[in-house]
Amino acid sequence: MTETLWSDAISFPEALSEAARLTDSVVERLLLTPEGLEARVFEAMRYAVLSPGKRLRPFLVLAASRLFGVARRCALQVAASVEMVHAYSLVHDDLPAMDNSDLRRGRPTCHRRFDEATAVLAGDGLLTMAFEVLSDPDTHGDPAVRCELVSSLAAAAGAGGMVGGQMIDLLAEKQILDIGAITRLQRLKTGALIAFSCEAGAILAKASTELRLALRGYAHDLGLAFQIADDLLDVEGSAAETGKPVGSDAAAGKATFVSILGAARARAQAELLVRQAVAHLDLFERRAELLREAARFVVTRRS
Amino acid sequence: MTETLWSDAISFPEALSEAARLTDSVVERLLLTPEGLEARVFEAMRYAVLSPGKRLRPFLVLAASRLFGVARRCALQVAASVEMVHAYSLVHDDLPAMDNSDLRRGRPTCHRRFDEATAVLAGDGLLTMAFEVLSDPDTHGDPAVRCELVSSLAAAAGAGGMVGGQMIDLLAEKQILDIGAITRLQRLKTGALIAFSCEAGAILAKASTELRLALRGYAHDLGLAFQIADDLLDVEGSAAETGKPVGSDAAAGKATFVSILGAARARAQAELLVRQAVAHLDLFERRAELLREAARFVVTRRS
Repeated sequence: MTETLWSDAISFPEALSEAARLTDSVVERLLLTPEGLEARVFEAMRYAVLSPGKRLRPFLVLAASRLFGVARRCALQVAASVEMVHAYSLVHDDLPAMDNSDLRRGRPTCHRRFDEATAVLAGDGLLTMAFEVLSDPDTHGDPAVRCELVSSLAAAAGAGGMVGGQMIDLLAEKQILDIGAITRLQRLKTGALIAFSCEAGAILAKASTELRLALRGYAHDLGLAFQIADDLLDVEGSAAETGKPVGSDAAAGKATFVSILGAARARAQAELLVRQAVAHLDLFERRAELLREAARFVVTRRS
Repeated sequence: MTETLWSDAISFPEALSEAARLTDSVVERLLLTPEGLEARVFEAMRYAVLSPGKRLRPFLVLAASRLFGVARRCALQVAASVEMVHAYSLVHDDLPAMDNSDLRRGRPTCHRRFDEATAVLAGDGLLTMAFEVLSDPDTHGDPAVRCELVSSLAAAAGAGGMVGGQMIDLLAEKQILDIGAITRLQRLKTGALIAFSCEAGAILAKASTELRLALRGYAHDLGLAFQIADDLLDVEGSAAETGKPVGSDAAAGKATFVSILGAARARAQAELLVRQAVAHLDLFERRAELLREAARFVVTRRS
């Protein structure tokens, strides 16, 4: 008997907070702090990955897995891995040599709470553990599925994905990017991991290419909408709401969707992307309602 | 037809340089620089992993794989992954917030040649790519074998292995470690990846637990002997030979095998460990001669 996820009656906010709670409890179990001096890096890893946050990526893993009736236990292993990779990327991006951020999700960033060396190592440890978790038989009984998860996450997170996107983002402070270049930057930097989060359910279920591509299409549009909304929050949000300084992109001299399109056109673009994202889910009929609500949420959120 | 590795007549120095040449050519193929702005991180990854070096770990992967007649193509994929992980660890360890090294293998370190942000990302990219390579069907036809490689490498490289060892090493500058604590530090920091390099051949060949444990025993003693020899070189070597400043451990106030045991006892200990390492290989009879020579090499090398 496999335990399934959520009844059909669950609302999106309930499902989102339930995804966060379940994922955090799996992460807690995976990141038990050992006895030795290395305990410090485990503490920093826990600090980074268990920090307050929406846990949107774990939610996407769980909601997409639910479309296929994937066992909750398997989906949660993947959700924990994805959140570890997300947290690692934030820890490294926040470093003094990168974005030099003191505040993240309303708390001191990892290198401010610990120190820079520990933050580098905590990021390295989280990234490595994500692959250890995916390759674990607990994640799926079929090693071919586990290998595909490892390979897809590595492609999304690596130099051809998230790492490459962050490289472009750093160079973007010294160059003027056009809308095409910014779209590509964001597809790599944030889109690839969001796409993996959505596709992982299809991988776990060995679903057809058609269904997998539908989820990829959804994730692609969702990821861009999410990023535009982030840029709008950087301009329009308050530090109390977003947990980070307002106007930090402009201060860094970065071109964003908002600096190029203006706030009104950027908002219209985000809303168009959400409609497109939702349209990709037609194949899944009523079962995809949570994912549709998630798409609407990303452009209306205040933090 | 699978191509096998090396004739029985090959000498250890020939095999070592052949392992380096073959591994570098696989790394070159895996790290083709793309067109976009992210090319910079690929250049930094290539700079780090293709830098001059002995390629001892790739040699160990190939020599241990050869004991079991593993196809050269498969062993080389693993050798490339291990060297990527080794290179990533050096890039991150050299960062200003860590060991703050300007020179590595006689050349500027990655963050000196590029910049600190690029070096962080290059390390991240190399670590991620190692897992992508291991999960690739080119590495082995059986996904269960690929998963075991991913899982074993992640355990060796992560917070319970290399990352944890580096954390302890950083804290060791502020604490006085005894010989037991230093042995544990080195087992995590350098021993775990050396052990994976030796065991990978047995994993690729689905060898018996007995043979796998023999290789692990060999690797354990080899790894410690290697580290003691490294500490001796830090005291006795010349910068021209080692490619890094002499006396850097003492300058950093770090306890080492040499600072605790003294040079003469440390050297005797390294030689004892080499004899133990070699004894673990008795099961493999004549076939393990290259691994025996490698063990003798690590304590006689001058760089």
